[in-house]
Amino acid sequence: MELSKRQETILEIVKKNGPITGEQIAEQLNLTRATLRPDLSILTMAGLLEARPRVGYFYSGKSTDRVLADKITRIKVGDVKSVPIVVPESCTVYDAVVTMFIEDVGTLYVVRDGGLLEGVVSRKDLLKTTLGGQDINKLPVGVIMTRMPNVYMTDVNDSAWLAAHKLLTHEVDSLPVVRTVPGTKGKEFEVVGRFSKTNITRIFVELGEGS
Amino acid sequence: MELSKRQETILEIVKKNGPITGEQIAEQLNLTRATLRPDLSILTMAGLLEARPRVGYFYSGKSTDRVLADKITRIKVGDVKSVPIVVPESCTVYDAVVTMFIEDVGTLYVVRDGGLLEGVVSRKDLLKTTLGGQDINKLPVGVIMTRMPNVYMTDVNDSAWLAAHKLLTHEVDSLPVVRTVPGTKGKEFEVVGRFSKTNITRIFVELGEGS
Repeated sequence: MELSKRQETILEIVKKNGPITGEQIAEQLNLTRATLRPDLSILTMAGLLEARPRVGYFYSGKSTDRVLADKITRIKVGDVKSVPIVVPESCTVYDAVVTMFIEDVGTLYVVRDGGLLEGVVSRKDLLKTTLGGQDINKLPVGVIMTRMPNVYMTDVNDSAWLAAHKLLTHEVDSLPVVRTVPGTKGKEFEVVGRFSKTNITRIFVELGEGS
Repeated sequence: MELSKRQETILEIVKKNGPITGEQIAEQLNLTRATLRPDLSILTMAGLLEARPRVGYFYSGKSTDRVLADKITRIKVGDVKSVPIVVPESCTVYDAVVTMFIEDVGTLYVVRDGGLLEGVVSRKDLLKTTLGGQDINKLPVGVIMTRMPNVYMTDVNDSAWLAAHKLLTHEVDSLPVVRTVPGTKGKEFEVVGRFSKTNITRIFVELGEGS
């Protein structure tokens, strides 16, 4: 939004002297309070100033940043997730590598019947294993995967922001998107998606397009 | 920004009937043009409506998204890049894997004297090679890398948005951040940074914090 010269001046005055009343601003500008009223309401409605009764005007300033933050934190994992690529625990390391190349993903999710999460295996895990000199045609991924409950996950209803935060904090490339289901021995997690830095990159590109 | 009930109504009217004059809006609301003037200026200044002389008011609507898009496209690669991890062309595949694990990066940049870009090698390239049955203690990365000029790069002055777009379009995990320098056989590219989906994830998390 474009501000008039006078509105810019008001902003400067409030930045420097806030909290300050409308009368005091008017005084500094040699104008009446009535003349300033439309400008003050525009600045307040745009979120650049905050008005508090019996105190006066504050500079809030960060309206754009807040709007952007709100928009970002409202995006749900469920709305942007990708299709999960899953293998059974008995899948060999060799077949896992082949699956990873065919599907072009960085992480595979290891599941049992019903798509229930057992573990995850990353490109890094596979690279480490292929260097280890074991027979990858016989070794099952179940042996090298990161096993539950040590897997970082994200719920389909989480915000994409929270999931992004988890990716950074735990230094992982992707999170299985899960739905919690009741199991025989407590909670189980059904894999319903995949959330990675690629999804975030897509959101970022879309936000930058103004869409 | 929060709109009043009346401002919301005006927006609806303009959305449906625009271009429409102030008088016509006032008529529909059974109000005078003078009463509406502050509302119309607020909506126009906030970028929600556009006013054109002798035509009337249009709905522009996407102001918030445009403001966000501007903010995103103003972020420069140079301001958010990471330290590049580089190896010489003669580095063995084994040593490249070890470097990748020690530095915990997904891509290594292969450079010659002066940090000039020769190629890139990814986790995927290394994984493919370790499966190939060659002696990775002898094989130099120069043999398996993606070689210039087939490397996607980003300039230190590019926007992070453009770089993100390149990552998606070319389906790569990272871009070497380069500065163009004059060489003996034309332009050369000095590697000055690394830009990956991790950098974008960091920007995304920061934007969501409203900072």
